[in-house]
Amino acid sequence: MTAPNRSTLWGRILVDELASGGLEAVCIAPGSRSTPLTVAFAEHPDVEVYSHLDERSAAYFALGRARRTGEPTALVCTSGTAAANFHPAILEADRARVPLLALTADRPPELRDSGANQTADQVKLYGDAVRWYADLPEPEADERKGRSLRTTAARALAQTVGVPPGPVHLNCPFRKPLEPIDVPGSVPEAFSETLAGSGREKAFVETEKGRVVPSDEAIRSLATALEGANRPLIVAGPADPADLCALDPDRIVAVAERVGAPVLADPLSGLRFGPHVADSGDSTGAATVVGGYDAYVSELPEPDLVVRFGASPTSKSLRHALRDADAAQTLIDPAGAWREATFTATDLLVASPDAVFERLLAELADSPDGSADPDRDGWIETVSEAERRHWAVRDDATTDEALAEDPFEGAILASVLEHAPEPATVFVSNSMPIRDADRFGRPNDSKLSVIGNRGVSGIDGITSTALGAGSATDEPLVLVTGDLAFYHDANGLLAVDRCGVDATIVLLDNDGGGIFHNLPIEAFDPPFTEQFKTPHGLEFEDLTALYDLEFDHVDPVDFADAYRRSLERDGTQVLSVAFDSERSHRRRDALEERVREELDTE
Amino acid sequence: MTAPNRSTLWGRILVDELASGGLEAVCIAPGSRSTPLTVAFAEHPDVEVYSHLDERSAAYFALGRARRTGEPTALVCTSGTAAANFHPAILEADRARVPLLALTADRPPELRDSGANQTADQVKLYGDAVRWYADLPEPEADERKGRSLRTTAARALAQTVGVPPGPVHLNCPFRKPLEPIDVPGSVPEAFSETLAGSGREKAFVETEKGRVVPSDEAIRSLATALEGANRPLIVAGPADPADLCALDPDRIVAVAERVGAPVLADPLSGLRFGPHVADSGDSTGAATVVGGYDAYVSELPEPDLVVRFGASPTSKSLRHALRDADAAQTLIDPAGAWREATFTATDLLVASPDAVFERLLAELADSPDGSADPDRDGWIETVSEAERRHWAVRDDATTDEALAEDPFEGAILASVLEHAPEPATVFVSNSMPIRDADRFGRPNDSKLSVIGNRGVSGIDGITSTALGAGSATDEPLVLVTGDLAFYHDANGLLAVDRCGVDATIVLLDNDGGGIFHNLPIEAFDPPFTEQFKTPHGLEFEDLTALYDLEFDHVDPVDFADAYRRSLERDGTQVLSVAFDSERSHRRRDALEERVREELDTE
Repeated sequence: MTAPNRSTLWGRILVDELASGGLEAVCIAPGSRSTPLTVAFAEHPDVEVYSHLDERSAAYFALGRARRTGEPTALVCTSGTAAANFHPAILEADRARVPLLALTADRPPELRDSGANQTADQVKLYGDAVRWYADLPEPEADERKGRSLRTTAARALAQTVGVPPGPVHLNCPFRKPLEPIDVPGSVPEAFSETLAGSGREKAFVETEKGRVVPSDEAIRSLATALEGANRPLIVAGPADPADLCALDPDRIVAVAERVGAPVLADPLSGLRFGPHVADSGDSTGAATVVGGYDAYVSELPEPDLVVRFGASPTSKSLRHALRDADAAQTLIDPAGAWREATFTATDLLVASPDAVFERLLAELADSPDGSADPDRDGWIETVSEAERRHWAVRDDATTDEALAEDPFEGAILASVLEHAPEPATVFVSNSMPIRDADRFGRPNDSKLSVIGNRGVSGIDGITSTALGAGSATDEPLVLVTGDLAFYHDANGLLAVDRCGVDATIVLLDNDGGGIFHNLPIEAFDPPFTEQFKTPHGLEFEDLTALYDLEFDHVDPVDFADAYRRSLERDGTQVLSVAFDSERSHRRRDALEERVREELDTE
Repeated sequence: MTAPNRSTLWGRILVDELASGGLEAVCIAPGSRSTPLTVAFAEHPDVEVYSHLDERSAAYFALGRARRTGEPTALVCTSGTAAANFHPAILEADRARVPLLALTADRPPELRDSGANQTADQVKLYGDAVRWYADLPEPEADERKGRSLRTTAARALAQTVGVPPGPVHLNCPFRKPLEPIDVPGSVPEAFSETLAGSGREKAFVETEKGRVVPSDEAIRSLATALEGANRPLIVAGPADPADLCALDPDRIVAVAERVGAPVLADPLSGLRFGPHVADSGDSTGAATVVGGYDAYVSELPEPDLVVRFGASPTSKSLRHALRDADAAQTLIDPAGAWREATFTATDLLVASPDAVFERLLAELADSPDGSADPDRDGWIETVSEAERRHWAVRDDATTDEALAEDPFEGAILASVLEHAPEPATVFVSNSMPIRDADRFGRPNDSKLSVIGNRGVSGIDGITSTALGAGSATDEPLVLVTGDLAFYHDANGLLAVDRCGVDATIVLLDNDGGGIFHNLPIEAFDPPFTEQFKTPHGLEFEDLTALYDLEFDHVDPVDFADAYRRSLERDGTQVLSVAFDSERSHRRRDALEERVREELDTE
């Protein structure tokens, strides 16, 4: 089928090549200049189109989907400020290594900086935050240009899942007519089917992706170091989306057990929850995968060898303990980036974590078995005991009686993660929810995908990212968010209906920025209340009415029941649990103090 | 008073110099890294602090304030995605020449790209959209560095109101402690009072601003051309904020009358409304200031000389008529930018419009009076007659009977502008409202400041921009917006209470993007409805409940009364008027057709 004009042709070629390359979803905000892209996506049978009305929310929705799947998601917007609204999500995608493909429509080159309407400078709009930027050539029915377009599309898609994955920006100038109206002579009848046609057997450009593997020497050396260490630690930080999908937890646990190294599993590492968590945290077995370390790591003996992968851990006390330890620290990172901001890492192993553990396991299997007691020094037992005591303290604090007397936000995170259905996607917001998930989310054997936006840790776009993640699977979706984040991306709730995603939204409403109670600024009021805590008094039931969502005020003591009921129901429910953030903060401190006392009194 | 530590010192010096330089207002979003700036602003007696929770809305609020006053407004945010949320408003400020000063807090340099939390690459985050970018040095109690900071602050402020005015970005790294807690030795007791002290008589750096004036030759030449032309036109496009404040309308009208040139006054030019509009549009006098040209300019004889200033006119038919006219066209622009995207301007006069008209008037006063009939060729009468017929058609279409039968959105814009209190600030959203204001807003002698976001013409940030404009004066504020724009910046409504701004918000609710009915895509459904018109079915009464605003559904026929009542009441009311956008579109076309017929049948 010949395209009616060049703009339509261009949109079709671009979208067809992206679809051939495996692109499965696109988020589109309405606009005129982007018409050729929108029409081509809407026509294409293999790409799911999600329509959004706020470009900022659209970009975060796409980010969430790509984060959950590890696969690229595309974005389309019109020219002007629309494109700048993608910027926050692009920054998050950059730092968190999420494959996003931003397609921004633009005016033709001669109209840039000409005073033409709705025309901004979109060239390299996102600076160095993207893996690749290209300005598409102007649409034309030219064979060579068409090949270049196919190649550019394939390359852009490949770059989103390169090393490291991340955002790519194609700026797409179009001139009128933008609609699929017939312009005689614009596209000759004879224009090559190969270029313009869709539905071919294979992509115009087939892309095969390699992976970064470690050398045999590096593996031997690391295996030797692990076997020789007395107090080795494996630290799994927040996972890159690609690793969240590729890493084999059983293999990591097998390596850990073989060398006697506890795995300190960040709640976002993909390792804290799942079938591989065998008997962690119970009162009898030794824990390989531990999660309570934020409360007790400062009380442990120093590790003498640390192997780290993923991003920098959520736990500040863990980061400080690693900084202060007199230990060799190996970072594993396929991109060679130094995601360790205390600058105490001693070795950088540039390779994929999954490749490293696959080969480590093979190497260790080959080495003389039983050459050393895996728990030399009683290291595993020491960590396990601290873990047990931490969870005992937490359990004491989360009984109905304790909660009735001393409600605190951490109890909700504990409950969310303990009673989540299996499988489920649990999205945890920044600020206090992720810190509470870290502290109070006990490792369990449920198949949970726990994700957050820890690339840049903004509180913008949380709802949209969660709903985007939810759109990627048939699993139940749970979002835990604070009131400021819920307000910030209120527009994101439109996707519940518009994109057909259901969620259980747990809203921890402490009327402002509770996290500031953790900081010294608390002592300076003013400006503490007005400029930092910023209580707003918003009654979110009105907001949820706008989007036809169910809303319930839930008492902390009743939360587990309300949560279970919501998960059994269709549709989206917001469970709002009110807290006094100052009191929650004091409670957190008191519980940390109790764990320390417990460990001291041994 | 010695600062307790370097970060506090740095914040204080920066803010004090900005305040000395005349900065009067800042919009701050809460965050930790920005604590030194926030604390310094909150302490300073001369700067008004507006606290916002969504950085995108904060930036647009600041934009609105700066646009209304022509004076710089500052912005403060924490590190990370927060800063990217300023980007849309920065693009608008760039193109619309609005003085904004973005102060983005950042981590210290060694933490950039280190994997540290909440750390993005903020260096030159807004690319070429800012007039000036600087990375502040790290805080230190060093005399030379302190002088550099004072100078940078003064320079940044001056650049926002340079030629042309626009946004400036200072990226501000701070290290802990960020709060004003005492760090012995961090700032020596003896550290210069001149540098650190506040409340001095004059600024550390005094800035005097020149203006760009035309040469005598250029003025003589332009005056001669205007006097010699048979059908001269003065085209006033959307005004730069600086001109909106500086231009003397009486002077422009005096020049226009002296040379017999109708002034085609864009609704955003600052010239369509005001005491200088004497007898324009009544049925007897000749109109100097005309506003109905969008409907009839294609029917007029071609002008033979065009003098233009301000941005590109809102009216597409005017832009096309100017493109197609065989006329000399002089653009007046102090920045020498070529804001004329049809590339048919023949002369560029690099000077401030106010300076040009001041000198033109003097030059014309000196030239032999009565040397020519100011209305050679009956030009003024031809334009006046077209103007009269256009408004007669509009008046026919906006009687109660006509509206009961054929309601259309343009009637609301007509009413808003006709019955606005005096003085008032009227903010008109993009997409259809500004086009309808252009077409149906008859020139009148009320002191109205009619403004919009026509730099990049986004529909994001409209509510916040309007409320920011409203914060700048004690005048009543009217916002006319569509439902998509109202949804897009729903968060902006928080400023009604939080920043204490009242408004009458006229919501033209046609459930989606009515503007797409104007475009050929209307004929392609799908994807027209789902991807372009995007009806959402939102019931905005729920949204206004969230913000405790009054909400009324108003019938088009009752609008004028409801509008008057709202203007008499305190508080913020949303007057929601429902329309069928397709029908409004057909009605617009029919009215345009009627004006053309009227002119043809003469």
